[in-house]
Parts: sequence; structure tokens; C-alpha cells
Amino acid sequence: MRITILGGGGFLGRKMAARLAAEGHLGGREVSGLTLFDMAEPAPLEAPFPVARLAGDVTDAAALARAIPEGTGAVIHLAAVVSAQAEADYALGLRVNLQGTLAVIEACRRLAAPPRVVFTSSVASFGGGQAANLPDDARQTPANSYGAQKAAAELLLADASRRGMLDAVSIRLPTVIVRPGRPNKAASSFVSAILREPLLGLETTLPVPDDFRVWVCSPRRAVDWLTHATAMDTAPLGLDRGINPPGLSVSVAEMLAALTPEQRARVKREPDATVAGIVGGWPASFTADRARRLGFAPQDGVAEIVAQFLADDLAATRAERGL
Amino acid sequence: MRITILGGGGFLGRKMAARLAAEGHLGGREVSGLTLFDMAEPAPLEAPFPVARLAGDVTDAAALARAIPEGTGAVIHLAAVVSAQAEADYALGLRVNLQGTLAVIEACRRLAAPPRVVFTSSVASFGGGQAANLPDDARQTPANSYGAQKAAAELLLADASRRGMLDAVSIRLPTVIVRPGRPNKAASSFVSAILREPLLGLETTLPVPDDFRVWVCSPRRAVDWLTHATAMDTAPLGLDRGINPPGLSVSVAEMLAALTPEQRARVKREPDATVAGIVGGWPASFTADRARRLGFAPQDGVAEIVAQFLADDLAATRAERGL
Repeated sequence: MRITILGGGGFLGRKMAARLAAEGHLGGREVSGLTLFDMAEPAPLEAPFPVARLAGDVTDAAALARAIPEGTGAVIHLAAVVSAQAEADYALGLRVNLQGTLAVIEACRRLAAPPRVVFTSSVASFGGGQAANLPDDARQTPANSYGAQKAAAELLLADASRRGMLDAVSIRLPTVIVRPGRPNKAASSFVSAILREPLLGLETTLPVPDDFRVWVCSPRRAVDWLTHATAMDTAPLGLDRGINPPGLSVSVAEMLAALTPEQRARVKREPDATVAGIVGGWPASFTADRARRLGFAPQDGVAEIVAQFLADDLAATRAERGL
Repeated sequence: MRITILGGGGFLGRKMAARLAAEGHLGGREVSGLTLFDMAEPAPLEAPFPVARLAGDVTDAAALARAIPEGTGAVIHLAAVVSAQAEADYALGLRVNLQGTLAVIEACRRLAAPPRVVFTSSVASFGGGQAANLPDDARQTPANSYGAQKAAAELLLADASRRGMLDAVSIRLPTVIVRPGRPNKAASSFVSAILREPLLGLETTLPVPDDFRVWVCSPRRAVDWLTHATAMDTAPLGLDRGINPPGLSVSVAEMLAALTPEQRARVKREPDATVAGIVGGWPASFTADRARRLGFAPQDGVAEIVAQFLADDLAATRAERGL
């Protein structure tokens, strides 16, 4: 199977690529080639199959045609403008998150056989906030442009699936923690930062109260879900191609309890109404029954998430940041 | 208040314009001007206010800027590619139903004051089929491209409303009966035809069984709803700008009972799996509690709907079709 990762130079894209390189197969099928596509050319990757690395814009039809050549069996579509950035730059969010997905549909429908498309939608496509425990058929009423663009893109991918142009699975990812590297422009950046920065010996700020709850998953589990979504039988999905995966509902206090007292002291309370307003609108919990039935593995606890960061990403993050 | 009707040359657009011309005001405010915009220049309209008639494409930014000039208080956005046509021509449906709505957002956000935008979404944006009685928070899982494009456009309009670019109300119209004129490319065209054609003395075909149920409204009630949506206070809507109006759930047999036996004999049973497949996926009923609370008038019965067609549209339809 030939696989393309759009956003293949990003955090999750690199982890997905590394998993494919390490395993050499996906869902019982050998990976015969991988294309990594991002705005800047993705870094080289050692793999038991050929790896192409391409730079381009996800809304550029010619660039996408090179990234998704004839014979592509699966497209992992991670290319996106994140939440706070899409809120700050409306046109950019629309262009990448909505028009970019339409361009992916156009590229896929030109292939002889409809490819699997795994799309990363988001918890931010829902409303409900702190009080929510959303069922699988919850309506998406996003309180931010990123979520609205993701929900609209889901509808267009589901329709393209129904028409046989492609075969989509949209995973509404929780907030992924612990993100390696530096703080980014996602409104949820603090959720990783309150663990990562103290673990690096650095101070950070907490913009929400300690009892604030967040729906999270680890990078490893996110890659598990993307992998499962790439390999799964989509027949049971019917028209509804959206999956609320079984993440973990956790409070800030529960996250901070995974740190030592000395590490915890590096987290400074600095309430931020803007960040609390965006992230506070996202639901803090989902039942995720359908995803469990469909074989998506549930998220383990905060202690495991922190241990995985230490094992997988601490050294690289130190090196990247010159610490 | 200056009002623009996009799709102002179409069936509902003309009726909405005629209502405004007859009343001269809307929601207690005087209408100071009306712009009718459609692909072909709309027909002249006698009115107590200036009426501009413009031809243009809804995806053409320059044409839309002329149609929605500074000072526009409300835009009634009816411009659309209908269901069977959007199913047959995917690119055309995307262009008009999705990109056209994005162009409307762009035109509206350039105004000094955000205008009310009344968007005609559709029962076709839902799934559920014959067994459904959908609550107000039902998830939109459309089984057709038209419905997917309408649902995606709703999300983008809701987001633009939240951002203060405009102030949208999306009305998910039931199948409107009795449509005047000729059969059209909507998959639901037969629902009007089985009343209209026999009333004109003509034969027609019924592609579904007699116990097939449809969610309908009359043209008069549709115009009532568009009018109410133009004038209403949108503060109670919050983030959810979509309204399921209180239509009528009616079976084909109940519709045909409004005809004389002689008229009924002009309806020939000719099952059509394609039409039944599209319309059969649309829900046959909604609770519509929220719309009732918000002051949207409920639909009256089939006998009233037929009487209104005879009073409002029979003569014009005869003339148009040379009968």
C-alpha cells in the first residue's frame, strides 16, 4: 500500500511516519511507499520502503497531484491551520482547513481506485464546554472558526465517500498531550505546556482554573487511532464518517498531580479569558461508545502519558530548544 | 431597511419580493429598497420602494458587491442548485451551494453594519428517512450532495455570525408544495407534481408508494418563515443558527385525498428507485419545538395548501405552460 501524509512534516505527521517506518506494514498490508507533504520539505526518514518528501501548499492542485499519485491507497490528511491561528486569521483558516480539504477531494477523485482518507477533525468542532459528556450523535455547534471549518470539511468528505470518490474516516482528535517542542498557536497549547515545560525545568503559565477539565489523548494513542482508521473496514460507518475516539477526560489538577512538587511550582496561575473562552467551549468528555465498538483503543492515564513523553520526546525537545 | 434577495428571480424569491411589495414593510420597519439578483435579470416588480434587478453569478465577487451594497440591512439567500441537479453535477453544486455562500459571507463582511442573512437550508441536510421524527438538536448526516453542501454552508454562516461579520438565520425548508410552473430538477419535484398536474388536468407519475411520508410546507408559509427570520431577534439563537420550521408531515395518500377522484386518476404509479432513494433518505417529520417557541407559525393542512395554489398560482401556471 502506498501512503501519503499531508502535513507530514508536523508533529503528528512525523510520528505517524516513524510508526510506519518502524513497522513496515499497516493493517496486515506491506507499506510499499510513503510520501510526506508539507509547506516545507519534511526531514529525511529511514524506512524499509521508498520515502518521497515534497514541499507544497495543500490548496495547490498541481502540488497535491504530485503528493497523491495514481496508486495511492491511503491519504492521512493532517494539514491544518490550528485553532487560535484560524481565529486570528479567518481567511487563512478557510483557505487551508476548508478549501484545502476540497483540494484533497479533487486530487483523490482523480485516482482509479478511491483511496482511504483519514482526516483529523477535532474536539473543537463541538460545543458543550465543561459540563458536556457528548454522545456519539451529538450535533456539532462549534464556537470557533477552526472547529466550524473542520466540521464543514467532515460533511464534504462524508459526501465524497458516499459518492465513491474516496473512503473517509474523520477522527475528532482530543487535545494531544504532551506535545513536544515549543508552545504553538493552538488555544490548547497550555494543556501540553503545563506538563512539558516543568519537565524541562522551565516555568509556564496556567490560563484556566485547576478544576478545568480537558478531553485529551497521547501522541502514541493518536497514532494508534490514525493507523486503525487507515486499516479499518468502513462499511459499518454508513453515512456517518465521523469518529469520537475514546480519549481521557482529565482536570488540570489531575494533570499536575503527575509532576513532582518542585515541577508543579513552575506552573504560574495567570488567568487568560481569551484562551479560557476558546478551550472552555470545547466539550470536556465524550461517551465514545461507537469508537470502542469499532476497535479504537481507549486512552490510558496521565501517568502513562507523562512516561511516554519522557521516553519518546524529552531528549529531542531538549535538543531542539537548546536546553 | 434595504433588502437583497439572491435568487430573486426564482419561485420563492419572486413570492418573497411580491410580499414585500404588497406590505411595504417588514417586522415594523419600512422597506426602503429591494435588489433582486439572479442568473438572469428578474422580472419587473411594482412596489412602493425602488427595485433594482441585477443579473449575475452568486460566486462572482464584483456582481455580489453590486447586489449587496453598503447600507443593506438584510440578505435573503435563496440562490442554489437543487437536489437532483447537485447530485448529477457535483462541481456545480459545490460551486453554487458552498462557494456561493462563502462569497455571500465575503460580500456581507465588507458592510459597515453586519446584515441579517436568511439562508434557505433544507430538510435534505438531514438523514433519518421515513421513520424519523427529528428533535431540534438532531445531527445532520445528509445522504445527498445538496444536503451536505447546505449543512456545510450553515456551519460557515454560523461561524461568520459568531464573528460579527453578519447575523444569519438558516431555515431548513421542508419540501415546498404546491410549486407553480413546471416540474424541476429537484428530486422532490414529484411531491408538487402529484397535486399540480392533476389540478391542471394533466397526467403525472408517482415514483413512491402511497404511504410514503414527506415533510412539507406551502409557499405562503415558507414566505412567512423567511419574513419572520428576517425580522426576529437572533440573540436567543446563540451559536446554533439553524431552524427546523414547523412544517407538516403528510403521506402521499393524504395529499391525493385533497383531489377529486377524477383528478386522482391522473396520477400513475411508476416506482423510481433513484428518486425514492434520494427523497426516502430525508426525514419525514421534525418536532420543531424551538421554531414554535421562536414564533415561527405552524403549517396548516393539505386542503389549505391546495386552496392556496388554486388562488395564488393556478392561473399563472396555466398561462406559463400555455394550457
